[in-house]
Amino acid sequence: MERKANPAQSLKELGNDVLKQVNEVKNPRLTLPIRALSNIYFDEKNGIIQLGSKVSYRTYMNVAHTRKFMQTMMVAAECKKIMDQNVTTSIRDLYYALKRTIPGTQENTVEEQSESDPILEDIEAALNTLREKLHLVADRKGYLAGPITINDTGDHMDCAKMGSSGWAVPSNVEEEAIKFEGCTADFVLVIEKDAVWQRLNEDKFWRKHNCLILTGKGQPARGTRRLINRLHTEQKLPVYVLTDADAWGYYIYSVIKQGSINLSFLSDRLGTPSAKFIGLTTRDVEAFDIPKNVTIKLNKGDIKRTEEMMNYTWFKPKLWQEELHNMLRAGYKLELEALSAKGIKFISDQYLPTKIGKKDFLP
Amino acid sequence: MERKANPAQSLKELGNDVLKQVNEVKNPRLTLPIRALSNIYFDEKNGIIQLGSKVSYRTYMNVAHTRKFMQTMMVAAECKKIMDQNVTTSIRDLYYALKRTIPGTQENTVEEQSESDPILEDIEAALNTLREKLHLVADRKGYLAGPITINDTGDHMDCAKMGSSGWAVPSNVEEEAIKFEGCTADFVLVIEKDAVWQRLNEDKFWRKHNCLILTGKGQPARGTRRLINRLHTEQKLPVYVLTDADAWGYYIYSVIKQGSINLSFLSDRLGTPSAKFIGLTTRDVEAFDIPKNVTIKLNKGDIKRTEEMMNYTWFKPKLWQEELHNMLRAGYKLELEALSAKGIKFISDQYLPTKIGKKDFLP
Repeated sequence: MERKANPAQSLKELGNDVLKQVNEVKNPRLTLPIRALSNIYFDEKNGIIQLGSKVSYRTYMNVAHTRKFMQTMMVAAECKKIMDQNVTTSIRDLYYALKRTIPGTQENTVEEQSESDPILEDIEAALNTLREKLHLVADRKGYLAGPITINDTGDHMDCAKMGSSGWAVPSNVEEEAIKFEGCTADFVLVIEKDAVWQRLNEDKFWRKHNCLILTGKGQPARGTRRLINRLHTEQKLPVYVLTDADAWGYYIYSVIKQGSINLSFLSDRLGTPSAKFIGLTTRDVEAFDIPKNVTIKLNKGDIKRTEEMMNYTWFKPKLWQEELHNMLRAGYKLELEALSAKGIKFISDQYLPTKIGKKDFLP
Repeated sequence: MERKANPAQSLKELGNDVLKQVNEVKNPRLTLPIRALSNIYFDEKNGIIQLGSKVSYRTYMNVAHTRKFMQTMMVAAECKKIMDQNVTTSIRDLYYALKRTIPGTQENTVEEQSESDPILEDIEAALNTLREKLHLVADRKGYLAGPITINDTGDHMDCAKMGSSGWAVPSNVEEEAIKFEGCTADFVLVIEKDAVWQRLNEDKFWRKHNCLILTGKGQPARGTRRLINRLHTEQKLPVYVLTDADAWGYYIYSVIKQGSINLSFLSDRLGTPSAKFIGLTTRDVEAFDIPKNVTIKLNKGDIKRTEEMMNYTWFKPKLWQEELHNMLRAGYKLELEALSAKGIKFISDQYLPTKIGKKDFLP
């Protein structure tokens, strides 16, 4: 799908198209990409999860569609309005801004946010844009430190001088808001856990190893994933990911790398296919002589999830199959903090330098 | 209880005291404040929830205490060690650093973090200190913007030039790490929700109203509560709190104001008794002509919780009783985002200026 340069223009075209149909006394119809598993595939060439080309039609004069048709028009109109006002808002505010009782009826335009959220995703997918470009902010929780200066809406953030807290990754990191003004880092280290990020920041790991350190605090929010994508694409930085050695950690990695099924229509902007997995792995237990009593026994859910993951295309590479087999064979998982059993600074001084030095990564 | 100036010294004294008892061939005993409801009271004079003076004894030669006695010594020793190394770590890392199998046995020193966490709280209470002073970091999630410059471990943060993200409040905001270098603000506005904070930051509300805006993203983490306390105590700033009009929002306010039952031994450092509640209230629905269809019907849990809160000493002031009665009578609650039904900028341009102008606060 072609990338539209100007989402405001796309919204206008969407509205004009419906208006044209109305003027021609046609049953107004919207064309929307199908955002279901049946229309999602793994794009081997680009290494990302993609949305296929199947579309569905939402027509006004169809009782099964009328409500959603109205809501689609309302969400689109509200997005246009906030863009025209040059303000930003949240998807919860959007829901409240739309909610009203239709005059002369007992009917509300929207009842719950769970109605307006998927409509917004329809519009993102139909216009091939991100909600951030429609001036809607998402949750945010990431932090970054290292040798890069970022222009955030006119303010200049030297991320090598951000104390103990680092630069807070905002919701919207699109080019309009966030510009890279100078970056001398050699790579980006993405860390699942904030506590580990804080450890590495305190040790000034980013200075010693000339890198950026970035945490998403669990599964990174959209803004953080988009930032990783931009740092890789624009600054040509290799991306290494550090998570717990468990199914959830490996899933976080896979979402950073090839995008997610839910947001498959955004994988080219949120995924970073060349990302590498630095650890932890269950193999590390032997390789780094980690005491067995800090490993955690796999429960039934872990085993089921690990077995499922072995069947995913993106975990088919030999090294990943070996790791997943090893996890099931050993019967345990382990957390990043388990490395503290070897000393608080073990992760900064030993584990990461060894892994990076040997390029001991999973694909 | 007297505030100890130097937690490292206090830890040493704790250890020396036990050593002395061992040398005197006594049964070693630790004196710990009782951290249970039976020893907690509302200090009307200071307006905070306090821990009473009852203590319990943990003795080594008592099968019911031996394990905990050992763990207390281990946690204290590990804290001393990380302080001596001048490093900081998380309570999860602390747990892993302690976890090992006792030689010659099948017994682990600690099995779960749920064992080491309360031990740490015992030590905080016994030494009358904060874990942050013992170099342990807690969760963090707050953001701040406005006319203040903060020295964070040697870096200078001008919080009026922090773009769309603001200054991320770190885990540890104790004097050793965080210093206020200049503040021209007239008050602090504490906001429950980050989306609302982002709205106000985009509108540069803090510039127009010469204030600091701070969000804790829900219930503020310890660091954020401590920061509010320090901004009030050291910078003499009035503190206004803005939450949803529901039991959870009012609870957040009460914790910011008078501390929590769980951390009652820290209320003098985490609470801000002179904080005022700016809104939302259910009265605002009438006062600001908010459409009824953006209110949310109270469920059974809401009603039960609201009734409970009416009995709390700190909700006894007349204005609070009226608000809680009004909520039950009206049968609804509402969220901050509901103000968006009046327009995206209504909160910045109308609601807050009116409330602040009239000093229309709850105590």
